[in-house]
Amino acid sequence: MPVLVMKFGGTSVANLDRIRRAAKRVGVEVANGYDVIVIVSAMSGKTNELVGWVGETSPMFDAREYDAVVASGENVTAGLMALTLQEMDIPARSWQGWQVPVLTTSAHSAARIEDIPPENIMSKFDEGMRVAVVAGFQGRSPEGRITTLGRGGSDTTAVAFAAAFGAERCDIYTDVDGVYTADPRVCSKARKLDRIAFEEMLELASLGAKVLQTRSVELAMRYKVRLRVLSSFEGQSGNAGTLVCDEEEIMESNIVAGVAHSRDEAKLTLLSVADRPGIAATIFTALSDANVNVDMIVQNISEEGRTDMTFSCPTDQVGRAEKALDAAHEQDVLNFQELVADTEVAKISVVGIGMRSHTGVAAKMFRVLSVEGINIKVITTSEIKISVLIDRKYMELAVQALHDAFELDKTA
Amino acid sequence: MPVLVMKFGGTSVANLDRIRRAAKRVGVEVANGYDVIVIVSAMSGKTNELVGWVGETSPMFDAREYDAVVASGENVTAGLMALTLQEMDIPARSWQGWQVPVLTTSAHSAARIEDIPPENIMSKFDEGMRVAVVAGFQGRSPEGRITTLGRGGSDTTAVAFAAAFGAERCDIYTDVDGVYTADPRVCSKARKLDRIAFEEMLELASLGAKVLQTRSVELAMRYKVRLRVLSSFEGQSGNAGTLVCDEEEIMESNIVAGVAHSRDEAKLTLLSVADRPGIAATIFTALSDANVNVDMIVQNISEEGRTDMTFSCPTDQVGRAEKALDAAHEQDVLNFQELVADTEVAKISVVGIGMRSHTGVAAKMFRVLSVEGINIKVITTSEIKISVLIDRKYMELAVQALHDAFELDKTA
Repeated sequence: MPVLVMKFGGTSVANLDRIRRAAKRVGVEVANGYDVIVIVSAMSGKTNELVGWVGETSPMFDAREYDAVVASGENVTAGLMALTLQEMDIPARSWQGWQVPVLTTSAHSAARIEDIPPENIMSKFDEGMRVAVVAGFQGRSPEGRITTLGRGGSDTTAVAFAAAFGAERCDIYTDVDGVYTADPRVCSKARKLDRIAFEEMLELASLGAKVLQTRSVELAMRYKVRLRVLSSFEGQSGNAGTLVCDEEEIMESNIVAGVAHSRDEAKLTLLSVADRPGIAATIFTALSDANVNVDMIVQNISEEGRTDMTFSCPTDQVGRAEKALDAAHEQDVLNFQELVADTEVAKISVVGIGMRSHTGVAAKMFRVLSVEGINIKVITTSEIKISVLIDRKYMELAVQALHDAFELDKTA
Repeated sequence: MPVLVMKFGGTSVANLDRIRRAAKRVGVEVANGYDVIVIVSAMSGKTNELVGWVGETSPMFDAREYDAVVASGENVTAGLMALTLQEMDIPARSWQGWQVPVLTTSAHSAARIEDIPPENIMSKFDEGMRVAVVAGFQGRSPEGRITTLGRGGSDTTAVAFAAAFGAERCDIYTDVDGVYTADPRVCSKARKLDRIAFEEMLELASLGAKVLQTRSVELAMRYKVRLRVLSSFEGQSGNAGTLVCDEEEIMESNIVAGVAHSRDEAKLTLLSVADRPGIAATIFTALSDANVNVDMIVQNISEEGRTDMTFSCPTDQVGRAEKALDAAHEQDVLNFQELVADTEVAKISVVGIGMRSHTGVAAKMFRVLSVEGINIKVITTSEIKISVLIDRKYMELAVQALHDAFELDKTA
């Protein structure tokens, strides 16, 4: 029988009622003829409770013990989900990471999945089992210890299982009903996309459309796992969600798939830096050592041996960035006149694989913003994305104007 | 280094403060030069929460899934205890049942430990680890699934580890500070025993002195594991608890070690049963089929081919016993005149290995009760125990009178 992977996040299994609701959806797919692998998160709140206990016990905790404690949340949900399915007369059993086994690296709390031998679960499917409920987010290290995968780990588990079992699809049940052309809270005309290409989803995921974790999308793209995002809180009918798939599966599409925004971005400018070879390396090594995640970088034209260097980073890392650069200044590693931070900015991006073959998207974007009187502070581009930093007060206006201009409320 | 096993029950690890307190006691034994194996229960209340979820999800649950869910409670405590010890600079790590491995039968929720290969933990001790924290109550079946050991499982885990590692002693930390000559709530003169023989502890455990589970005492006796019962809530000094050991280790002892009581016992009498060969088998097969745990059995002298049969069982099983016997009566398997149940009784027992070599204990017991005007309803004896059923209203009086008569407030 074809295999389907279904993943339910913490809010979808928050209590016994929701577990039953999720189990019913699994039942529908079993009736559709699938052997189903269900990946579950911990009941929402449980992981935080466990993480809290670990932090209170040991602020600089041993990540191996952290993993052993925290992984227990998923184990509870897996057992309860298997029992719920059994009550519905569906042959099911639970699997913990080490039982499958999900083989990972030894990088505790941030382990990578190395292999998922499918034999154990497949032999149970062959014996008539219809659903394997697997505790997400966890695995076993080469040393035989329990590992966890870190942020977004359950999505990653689901995609990895879909790849290992050659699943027809990997359905991610969450609390939104799909991927939108823009955030509906910001742009009322935002439209749910039926399909989106991996590359587009990847740009949107990393741009703050918090539907899927970047890591799971990357994995899905590498192994060509068709991902579907859909809501566990909507009725069955019409709830097709959004399919994230290879661009070849998308027949017609708009040039631009969506407009993303992020208000969690600050702009820093080093004024009048002594311009010499290796200066960029000096700056960004200092920032990297201070664990500052730099996003956009722009170097202005150099004048008389000095230049301005502008970059953006998450708002809550501005203090760290300033400290690192001031320290480098004091140690004479770096010479600049002034460091100016602007935390009142927002990043707006238009994303679409159609940009590869269509020119003029950037020009149109800049024109739209200019007509609205919005000044662009920084620009970066990739093959399928154009991002700009603007004053945060214009964020909603910019998203709406671009959504209109690229006619994202209409299908191609 | 010599190995010591220390077991902490649910109330001893109920929260992070108590875990720290328990860890300090472990630290003392590490400083004393022991390699320590710590067996932990789930934080009190956690197992009940998990059991409740399973019961609500699936009233006739799959015991394999029950075990997978319920065992997670001990895993959390094990990780937190290891972290707490690490914070005290004691090299420690946690082990779940499958990691050790604790190999058990496949009898889920009531598994028996078959083997505990010590190599994994010993090799870590050899590398300098000082404490192995093991999640109690659980193991791995031959099929690679998680099993639990059922009631008293953590005590049993502790004793089994002590046997497997040739531990010098197995310390059971609980909420009482030892084994007493009688229940101090019933008899104010009750005295804590410094030592008690396995056989005596076994009789007391099964008689309702809820300090240790029968099963763990049996195991300790078989493998000659010296067990110490002590309180986790008392100061370190003078808290020696009670040592449960081979009788050869007890130099001098009173003939009677203690007086036990149980109010959870009912007396049932079948009046005028047709007395023929096999009638006892018929009665007790019917009761056994109905899962009635029969304790004492007395058959009165037969008159004219008819006899009275009296037995005792836990109070909450009286209904089941009556139903089973009435059914046998109706089916003409069993013929009796009347079934009389008396739920207002209590069982009083005197226990002591000295009874083997000293006569007159029974006579003295009956005389003491007679002087107090207490009527004896049923008597049973074993080599080291005499039990009687009496009216429950005399229970306290009987315990106190016997405690005085056998001078249990004085050491031998």
